[in-house]
Amino acid sequence: MKKYVIIVAGGKGLRMGSELPKQFLPIGGKPVLMRTLEAFRKYEATLQIILVLPKEQQDFWKQLCEEYHFDVGHLIADGGETRFHSVKNGLALVRESGLVGVHDGVRPFVSVDVIRNCYDLAETRKAVIPVIDVVETVRHLTGNSSETVSRNDYKLVQTPQVFDTELLKRAYTQEFTPFFTDDASVVEAMGVPVYLAEGNRENIKITTPFDLKIGSALL
Amino acid sequence: MKKYVIIVAGGKGLRMGSELPKQFLPIGGKPVLMRTLEAFRKYEATLQIILVLPKEQQDFWKQLCEEYHFDVGHLIADGGETRFHSVKNGLALVRESGLVGVHDGVRPFVSVDVIRNCYDLAETRKAVIPVIDVVETVRHLTGNSSETVSRNDYKLVQTPQVFDTELLKRAYTQEFTPFFTDDASVVEAMGVPVYLAEGNRENIKITTPFDLKIGSALL
Repeated sequence: MKKYVIIVAGGKGLRMGSELPKQFLPIGGKPVLMRTLEAFRKYEATLQIILVLPKEQQDFWKQLCEEYHFDVGHLIADGGETRFHSVKNGLALVRESGLVGVHDGVRPFVSVDVIRNCYDLAETRKAVIPVIDVVETVRHLTGNSSETVSRNDYKLVQTPQVFDTELLKRAYTQEFTPFFTDDASVVEAMGVPVYLAEGNRENIKITTPFDLKIGSALL
Repeated sequence: MKKYVIIVAGGKGLRMGSELPKQFLPIGGKPVLMRTLEAFRKYEATLQIILVLPKEQQDFWKQLCEEYHFDVGHLIADGGETRFHSVKNGLALVRESGLVGVHDGVRPFVSVDVIRNCYDLAETRKAVIPVIDVVETVRHLTGNSSETVSRNDYKLVQTPQVFDTELLKRAYTQEFTPFFTDDASVVEAMGVPVYLAEGNRENIKITTPFDLKIGSALL
C-alpha cells in the first residue's frame, strides 16, 4: 500500500526583520524540521515525504540541507495562506491511492511506534488521530464565567493524523472555514468519524523558547 | 495581612518496595519539594508555610532537610486520605484571618510573579486561580464518539489557588465529593465564583520521569 506523509512547516518569517521560524532552529545541533523528517524516514524507507514550506523559505531550506548533508528524500510543496491551504497544496502531490498522514513540522519527537500504529490502524479505520490525556484540571469558559469540567472527558490532539488518501482528498475539496483547526475536523465536517489512537507525551509542538528548552532536554 | 500557603505533597510511597515519591527526587541536585518551598519563601519572608506530608514520610523529610541544610521555615501537617483531606488538615493550622494559598508540592517552577499576582488579586477577589491557555487541539469525548471543540473556550488550571482564609475554611466544612478535584471546585460548590489569573507555563507538575527531564532542563 502506497504511503505518504505531508509535513506542514508553516511558520512565518525569514523576511527582513522577522525572527527565524522555530522549525529551522537547531535542537541538539540539528534543525527541528530535519529531526521531524528523520522520524518518518525511520518508520519506513519507502514512505513518500512531502514537505510543505512557504515559498520564501525554500531556498533557505535547501541551503540548510546542503550545510547539514541532509539526505532524507522528500518533495517540496508551496505553503498556503492557512494550514488548510498548505495541506491542500501537499495533497496535490499525492498521486496514488493508499494512506496519507499529515504532521506538524515542529513535532520532531513523535515516536516511531505512534507513527506505525496510526498508519496500521488507518488501513481499516480510514481516519486515525493520536491523542493524549489531559493531566491538568480543565476549566471551560462560559460567557463571563467558567466552570471545572472533568478532564477525563477531554483529550489533547497530536499528529500524525492519518487517512485514506481518497477520503482526505475529498474532505479537502470542501470550502475552508475557520473551524478547520486540524485535519480531523476537515474530515469530520463530511460526517466521517475519526478513530482515536494513543499518542506519545514527548510529541510536543516546538513553538516557544520554553518548548526549545524542553526539546533539548528530550534528546 | 496574614498570609499562609498550604503545600500539598501527597505522593504515596516510602513503604517497603514502593518507589520514592517524585516530590523527594532531586532536580539539579535538590529535591523537588525544597525548590517548591523556596519559591514561596522568595515571594515573602513572613509567609507562613504549611507543608502537608503523609505521616510515614515525615521522618524521611526531616532527614532530608538536615542533609541539605534546608532552612526555609515551615510547619508540618499530616496528609489525609485524599487531597481534600490533606488540605483540610493543613487548614487546621491556619489560625488568623487573611489569605491562604494552596499549592502542589510537585510544582517547583511557579514564578514569584504568579504567586504575588494571585495573592494580590485575592485581597479583593477572595478566590483566585492561575490558568494557562491550551496549545493543542482539544477533543471532547461524548459517549462512544468525540468532537473537536474550540481550545479558546478552555484553560488549564495550575496552583497556587489563593483564597480568603474564612472562605476556604467554610468551603472545607462541606462533605467530600469526588468532584472536588482542586480547591476552586470546593469553593465553587458553595456558589462562590473564582477569578482567573495568568499562570506561567513553566509551572508544570512533576509526576513522571518525562516531567523530571523537563524540570532539569528548566533549571
